Amino acid sequence: MKSSRNAPLQISILSKDADILADNLSSIDDIRHLIDIVHVTDNPQSITPSEIKVLLAAPNLAVKIIGECHNLVWCQSSWAGNRPLLSHDKQNYLLTGIKDIFGPLMREYVFAYLLHHARSVNAFSTNQAATPPVWEATARVPLQGKTLGIIGLGNIGRALIPTARAFGMKVIGVTNTGAPIEGTDHIYTKASLLDFAGRADHIVNLMPDTPDTQNILSTAFFSALKPNAVFINAGRGEAVDDDALLQSLTHGKPALAVLDVFREEPLPRDHPFWSHPNIIITAHTAAESSPQDVAAIFAENITRFVQQQPLIHTFDFEKGY
Amino acid sequence: MKSSRNAPLQISILSKDADILADNLSSIDDIRHLIDIVHVTDNPQSITPSEIKVLLAAPNLAVKIIGECHNLVWCQSSWAGNRPLLSHDKQNYLLTGIKDIFGPLMREYVFAYLLHHARSVNAFSTNQAATPPVWEATARVPLQGKTLGIIGLGNIGRALIPTARAFGMKVIGVTNTGAPIEGTDHIYTKASLLDFAGRADHIVNLMPDTPDTQNILSTAFFSALKPNAVFINAGRGEAVDDDALLQSLTHGKPALAVLDVFREEPLPRDHPFWSHPNIIITAHTAAESSPQDVAAIFAENITRFVQQQPLIHTFDFEKGY
Repeated sequence: MKSSRNAPLQISILSKDADILADNLSSIDDIRHLIDIVHVTDNPQSITPSEIKVLLAAPNLAVKIIGECHNLVWCQSSWAGNRPLLSHDKQNYLLTGIKDIFGPLMREYVFAYLLHHARSVNAFSTNQAATPPVWEATARVPLQGKTLGIIGLGNIGRALIPTARAFGMKVIGVTNTGAPIEGTDHIYTKASLLDFAGRADHIVNLMPDTPDTQNILSTAFFSALKPNAVFINAGRGEAVDDDALLQSLTHGKPALAVLDVFREEPLPRDHPFWSHPNIIITAHTAAESSPQDVAAIFAENITRFVQQQPLIHTFDFEKGY
Repeated sequence: MKSSRNAPLQISILSKDADILADNLSSIDDIRHLIDIVHVTDNPQSITPSEIKVLLAAPNLAVKIIGECHNLVWCQSSWAGNRPLLSHDKQNYLLTGIKDIFGPLMREYVFAYLLHHARSVNAFSTNQAATPPVWEATARVPLQGKTLGIIGLGNIGRALIPTARAFGMKVIGVTNTGAPIEGTDHIYTKASLLDFAGRADHIVNLMPDTPDTQNILSTAFFSALKPNAVFINAGRGEAVDDDALLQSLTHGKPALAVLDVFREEPLPRDHPFWSHPNIIITAHTAAESSPQDVAAIFAENITRFVQQQPLIHTFDFEKGY
């Protein structure tokens, strides 16, 4: 528990990074005098919900007590996607999230693995580790001239476009409307998903978790991929039909799946994804905000809240995003 | 041996990829009728040098017979750097090389390994291979906001600039003149190499092999690096003092060395670089042209040669580049 003499705003922090977030907030000169941090915990059960007025929280923890938070005015989520809170009955409070910082993180993740494949990093690594070591020009397949397909072109998806073009790639996409987007060659809709799948050389899924996208990446989708395609899922696990992906991998489509999100997280130890030679698994870390990033955005919103200005990165319960 | 009815230009091909180059040339409609491919070999001893008029060759093979090629008019090299031929006494012929295609290849190599390090690809891979597998948000250090230092800003080095900026990086460089270059924050000279080394977060050496750059990347240079720096050498092996690098690696500077070029190639089996845990070795493949690339540039020059227009990518023996 921390306090500051002129602190009118009582802040509760509920996150696995609660201590770091509290330290970060306390170190920001602009807001230190505006806040009183009254709860710092990773355990929802350790807080009396009715005491919570302003909450900085991870949605998966907040959802466990949100229904009892009768005095809650505002919740600043530490996530980009807020499905758990948006789906909850309780909706009479301000909900804000984290945006804009994920694009730069996501583009590094996506190109790390596209280039990992393109430059045969594993093959060179195996050659180096061999006894005796092997000096060999293992085959590489440049990204230059290839087409990157992006499913879901919100802020994060769009952040990939200039980077793809800086590597000499074309970009196509899938969105709800199919309306043109600058920097892309063509935008498809879900109705033309298979045409899209057949035209892209590599595909990144960044669709948010909405009911109509469940299992949309199906046997038909994977069968339509080009040979040598890399498929990256950094949107939501529910979009992928796991069995369809495993089945299609045996036919080399995709050549490599890079998966950051799953139906159940952490991915269960006995899930066949873990041991598949053509699947790379990361721990929902593709675009994970740092506590510093979250604290900075919360601080900006605290200033606005105190000055009764509109908050940034607000969610609309009716629209669901 | 291949021929075409109207072929005035007798072409000799001397390369380990001679067959593929011949096939590629023969498949280019614009020039097929202009050439007669009279030698296709990877063995310099299999050609009578005086029969050679126009030569498509790798410099390391061509140099073995170039002195005897008394009827040589033009040599199209398949390399970017042509030190072996430029240093040879015989200089009374046209020498052209391969340019412009290496930048796109180099930027994929450089960012593959910068992102490999930034995204802790190996750590996630180790977690996945563990029994049981480990779900863990291993630390990552974004490229965004960092400074890329490039030693040698010719065509290849400059190709990295827009890509670095697309990742939100700043760029600084080292050149002979220190003159400003668009897209960079500052250009240093060799005289201020240590200042440069201390300011860049990651460094790529792309200096060509000239006598005054031998061992320029010395103990002083490596000691000046920032902690966590990645050092990539894709210029020439002679620029690096091997012992200085090995010694400095024990102090974590650089944190990771990615080496594509060496004093002796292939890198000798017993060289300590092979087994060092913080060295990644590739086989002089960072920006290796494909036979298709070489054939396309040669075809362009054949058209120009026949039409008596200036050739592209010519070398000047006097200047040495």
